Amino acid sequence: MRVDILSLFPEMFKGPLQESIIGKAIEKEIIDVEITNYRNFTKNKQQHVDDYPYGGGAGMLLQAQPIFDALDFVEEKHGDLGSVILLDPAGRQFNQKVAEELATKQHLTFICGHYEGYDERIRERVTDEISLGDYILTGGELGAMVIIDATVRLLQGTLGNDSSAIGDSFSTGLLEYPQYTRPASYRGMEVPEVLTSGNHQKIAQWREYESLKRTFLRRPDLLEKLELTKEQEKMLAKIVKDLKK
Amino acid sequence: MRVDILSLFPEMFKGPLQESIIGKAIEKEIIDVEITNYRNFTKNKQQHVDDYPYGGGAGMLLQAQPIFDALDFVEEKHGDLGSVILLDPAGRQFNQKVAEELATKQHLTFICGHYEGYDERIRERVTDEISLGDYILTGGELGAMVIIDATVRLLQGTLGNDSSAIGDSFSTGLLEYPQYTRPASYRGMEVPEVLTSGNHQKIAQWREYESLKRTFLRRPDLLEKLELTKEQEKMLAKIVKDLKK
Repeated sequence: MRVDILSLFPEMFKGPLQESIIGKAIEKEIIDVEITNYRNFTKNKQQHVDDYPYGGGAGMLLQAQPIFDALDFVEEKHGDLGSVILLDPAGRQFNQKVAEELATKQHLTFICGHYEGYDERIRERVTDEISLGDYILTGGELGAMVIIDATVRLLQGTLGNDSSAIGDSFSTGLLEYPQYTRPASYRGMEVPEVLTSGNHQKIAQWREYESLKRTFLRRPDLLEKLELTKEQEKMLAKIVKDLKK
Repeated sequence: MRVDILSLFPEMFKGPLQESIIGKAIEKEIIDVEITNYRNFTKNKQQHVDDYPYGGGAGMLLQAQPIFDALDFVEEKHGDLGSVILLDPAGRQFNQKVAEELATKQHLTFICGHYEGYDERIRERVTDEISLGDYILTGGELGAMVIIDATVRLLQGTLGNDSSAIGDSFSTGLLEYPQYTRPASYRGMEVPEVLTSGNHQKIAQWREYESLKRTFLRRPDLLEKLELTKEQEKMLAKIVKDLKK
């Protein structure tokens, strides 16, 4: 997968692109990332890429010209732009489904805005507007990194163990069950007995119960979106009963 | 504000903590950030901090001991841990309200997990579990950076212009209206006339209309949470009518 990033702060990507999963994916040539600083495309002497909003108001806006010219540059260099993604609070909400969708693409181009906002005409070049969530960040860089991380870990070969993306929260539609590792007793806290019983059927049941219970308590909205099996429906009824005790 | 981060990948923070708004806030001594690598607290020879899950399953889990000991270290050094935040898909959803809440705290301590998950007992030390959204990241680092960015920009003195956090999307409950900056005509695309009219009342009306319209079209869920003024109700009725034309 090709990933192009238009950013005023290429240095921000230094750590995140070298370390952890994105770094490994680059090393393994699963993705090829290139950052283009669109300040290099400004045509004014002061190298500004922002200007005052028409109609007044606080803050500065990103101008269309440096972004358009940087996009032209990337397009010319690589033949296409793929999906042109704008990080924006008004975009569609990023979630695991969107990550899975992006993971099927050959080429992603991220536009990382800054300042108070950007010239509306920039949207003309954009094919996908995405929001990380209902909060405001100072720039699109962290958002791009988050989306790249969530997407790249779904690509074949990125995670050491290909099976480990499967049991994730959200991939089953439920939150993950509690997990424990050694030691069995730590600072007076014990691992639930069932997990050391060696009885695989009981372990699987316990996990499904706990997974359903956690989702019911913390994210009932996720349950509403799911079609539960008959066994899960029964289990959920038991959970509700157990909680009333 | 003190910010402590427990992470296995301190290098990941290099770019993001030096550049942009977080870098400026550190420079201005608005926040003091310290990263503690909890691998330094492992007691096994191979320096592992992960182990197999009890009861079987794919992937490795983060052990409780290195985290507990790293938390003890930070607590001893600084007198307290403040809010201990775990980045977790099962946590409460991060949003602008949560950022505003965190911005009132004196001390935040982030635990950045990695691997497939972590030993459940780690939650015993946690006071706040937060999820960025319904997607899976390979570690908590990017999540911590996002939360820090969204929170720190709300602190007095961080943004150059203190008024510029006020007109944000979400702070009014609505998405932001379209904005434009120079030139007035770019690649055949014009700035809406009203914005260059100099009529401030009309500009304010146009912006409110566009803000309501965008929210109505893209995020009707946000409108449901708001108590609209009578003027806004009227405007919304007109928007619906105009859209049917």
